[in-house]
Amino acid sequence: MGTPLPRILLTGFDPFAGEAVNPSWEAVRALHGRRIGGHRVAALQLPTEFAASLRLLRSAVREVAPTILLGVGQAGGRAQLSIERLAINLQDARIPDNAGAQPIDEPVIADAPAAYFSTLPIKAMLAALRAQGVPAEISNSAGTYVCNHIAYAMLHLASRRPGARAGFIHIPFLPAQAAHHPGAPSMTQAEVVRGLEIALRTAATTRRDRRLGAGTLD
Amino acid sequence: MGTPLPRILLTGFDPFAGEAVNPSWEAVRALHGRRIGGHRVAALQLPTEFAASLRLLRSAVREVAPTILLGVGQAGGRAQLSIERLAINLQDARIPDNAGAQPIDEPVIADAPAAYFSTLPIKAMLAALRAQGVPAEISNSAGTYVCNHIAYAMLHLASRRPGARAGFIHIPFLPAQAAHHPGAPSMTQAEVVRGLEIALRTAATTRRDRRLGAGTLD
Amino acid sequence: MGTPLPRILLTGFDPFAGEAVNPSWEAVRALHGRRIGGHRVAALQLPTEFAASLRLLRSAVREVAPTILLGVGQAGGRAQLSIERLAINLQDARIPDNAGAQPIDEPVIADAPAAYFSTLPIKAMLAALRAQGVPAEISNSAGTYVCNHIAYAMLHLASRRPGARAGFIHIPFLPAQAAHHPGAPSMTQAEVVRGLEIALRTAATTRRDRRLGAGTLD
Amino acid sequence: MGTPLPRILLTGFDPFAGEAVNPSWEAVRALHGRRIGGHRVAALQLPTEFAASLRLLRSAVREVAPTILLGVGQAGGRAQLSIERLAINLQDARIPDNAGAQPIDEPVIADAPAAYFSTLPIKAMLAALRAQGVPAEISNSAGTYVCNHIAYAMLHLASRRPGARAGFIHIPFLPAQAAHHPGAPSMTQAEVVRGLEIALRTAATTRRDRRLGAGTLD
Repeated sequence: MGTPLPRILLTGFDPFAGEAVNPSWEAVRALHGRRIGGHRVAALQLPTEFAASLRLLRSAVREVAPTILLGVGQAGGRAQLSIERLAINLQDARIPDNAGAQPIDEPVIADAPAAYFSTLPIKAMLAALRAQGVPAEISNSAGTYVCNHIAYAMLHLASRRPGARAGFIHIPFLPAQAAHHPGAPSMTQAEVVRGLEIALRTAATTRRDRRLGAGTLD
Repeated sequence: MGTPLPRILLTGFDPFAGEAVNPSWEAVRALHGRRIGGHRVAALQLPTEFAASLRLLRSAVREVAPTILLGVGQAGGRAQLSIERLAINLQDARIPDNAGAQPIDEPVIADAPAAYFSTLPIKAMLAALRAQGVPAEISNSAGTYVCNHIAYAMLHLASRRPGARAGFIHIPFLPAQAAHHPGAPSMTQAEVVRGLEIALRTAATTRRDRRLGAGTLD
Repeated sequence: MGTPLPRILLTGFDPFAGEAVNPSWEAVRALHGRRIGGHRVAALQLPTEFAASLRLLRSAVREVAPTILLGVGQAGGRAQLSIERLAINLQDARIPDNAGAQPIDEPVIADAPAAYFSTLPIKAMLAALRAQGVPAEISNSAGTYVCNHIAYAMLHLASRRPGARAGFIHIPFLPAQAAHHPGAPSMTQAEVVRGLEIALRTAATTRRDRRLGAGTLD
Repeated sequence: MGTPLPRILLTGFDPFAGEAVNPSWEAVRALHGRRIGGHRVAALQLPTEFAASLRLLRSAVREVAPTILLGVGQAGGRAQLSIERLAINLQDARIPDNAGAQPIDEPVIADAPAAYFSTLPIKAMLAALRAQGVPAEISNSAGTYVCNHIAYAMLHLASRRPGARAGFIHIPFLPAQAAHHPGAPSMTQAEVVRGLEIALRTAATTRRDRRLGAGTLD
């Protein structure tokens, strides 16, 4: 009997802001149980709620004991897979979450650092995605809503688990969602799933990130 | 032996502006020979050249004798299927065309009207696309390059053929193209083909357009 | 006693869409009575209403007998002085006008051409504005609301008056308006007034437009 | 003889990226020596160079001993005064700086925190600006170039000086710059100066920030 594979904890969210579907969960659940880069994927749906999502994440991290944590979230209006460079210790909710909470300028975790940089190899992931024809970019802000909240919490939890690394990717609307948002970009579920596989395989097999410029002037 | 089906002349362009592929031709050729809404589709590739594209279009119109003319062109940076409301009698080329010509403020066709409105049912097409989950919008400008040139020429030629109707749809980059254009939206070929089928079926079966607001303040 | 100067009819609109002010009227009225390029400016406020604005424009054209007609309108979201290349014979109102009318796909003037190109020297105006440090651009669509309506009507009326020329310029929000629209660009009244003077002086003194590329691919 | 006023150290940059002027220095120098909110303003021009700007900032902080540090920088493409919420410990230069250096994924200051939040009352500043008609917004990223570099360094230095607070504001192009960037937003120097005065007065007189939502979903 072999050694069990190391685990990837891959999370998506339930729908929010009036949408019927959340593309992050649709993509993430398609990868549940898959073997990628020598790891086994465990997919988890989180509620778009500040408090409950954090509780659920904590218990899943204890249970799954992942070496890689990747959060995925919907960014309506963005056009490409958007690899977050960092997450910040801040909640500033433009709209109430799915439980009705709307925190303003509160920390995700009290007495924790202002920010964490992603510990996944974001430049190598960017290069692999582009090389395989998947539109991708580096983002310097995951916002101030539940996505950033979970991105921050993942990085915080990973920082306390030896060998664990974490990161976050924002994804566009699905075409069927964009059909209700005039002018909004979209990406199909198949394209997102393919992109997440490439990103995870690169993360799993790259220990040291590439030196590749992807900065912004402002 | 039955009556031959009425024809749809469906055109796409060859690559330009340094791209290796033009998504309009990729989508259009996938529909060649297809029966849609009681019509038979004839797909035609046009060069991204002001002069040659017009000559080729004229001869194809004579040969195919279409009742529906639909031009399709790449609009890098747009996010949705973009149904053009009109085309204008103007060439103002920001970059040289594939033959090196760069006309500035010259007419497409001398002594012809300043513009033609699309004679396809653009609002019905918009509604059908959205209802079937394909992101789509009405556009009030097809630009001033070869796409508008062909859109105008199609509408001009159709205006002289009893029973013929014409229109133009701009489409986003393919994902593999957008992978080289940071931040640019994209749409898969399959999604575009599905959208063109819906648009053509609606055009073929709708004689009178819907009254549906799709205006812009400016 | 000298010959009276030829006239410029310069129009702005009253506030709409919930704004307290319309920057077009604020700029236009500052130029009333001014002598520019050998012409005398007559400023006129039009209501943001399809029907009434057209009636008022017709009577002002009869009374003022202008040789130059320039309409100015607010384009919330645009960042620069936006010189319209053409206007189209279409009303498609995204919101009701100030009289509650919301026409969809109706002509501005029945049995008139689909569009008119501006008869002012738009490229020379663009070059003069940029040379004097005023941000400006050529636009290929004046939209489908009351601005395009008046732009079209001006071009239609000018086409029937020997020697008369017409055009339209869209302008950004004032800073005080943009302060209520997160992320929206603005331009100060002084900057807009300065730009309109340059544009009008250029129009008054240029009989033949410059050949200057200002096209868009789509 | 009275007690000398507490000091504000206000910095702008020299031109970069081919521009002839940097609006940040034009605005900042207009405020040199001014008394605002019981403080005296000392304006300082920094070079758009990673290494030299940091050296110059350090020595100026020692010399001026400011209680408020506000950095100002050009953000070509942004439309409003953009109050930065945080700065990150990262250099990722899209273009070389004015000394030819182009660091990629290096820290601003080794062994320092990943990020600092602004210690100026950014929400109160936002509210004051909007209330007085100056277009303003909160930004969650100061980029990864020299602006973020100085913003981070200011926050780092202020964190070590009891009573000192720091922040950063990005500003749009001047109109004369935007005239060379088709479609780019701009703000006049007078408007920026007025905005900086309001921001500094609010910072100087507000000890505890307002609780005011200004978040983004992503």
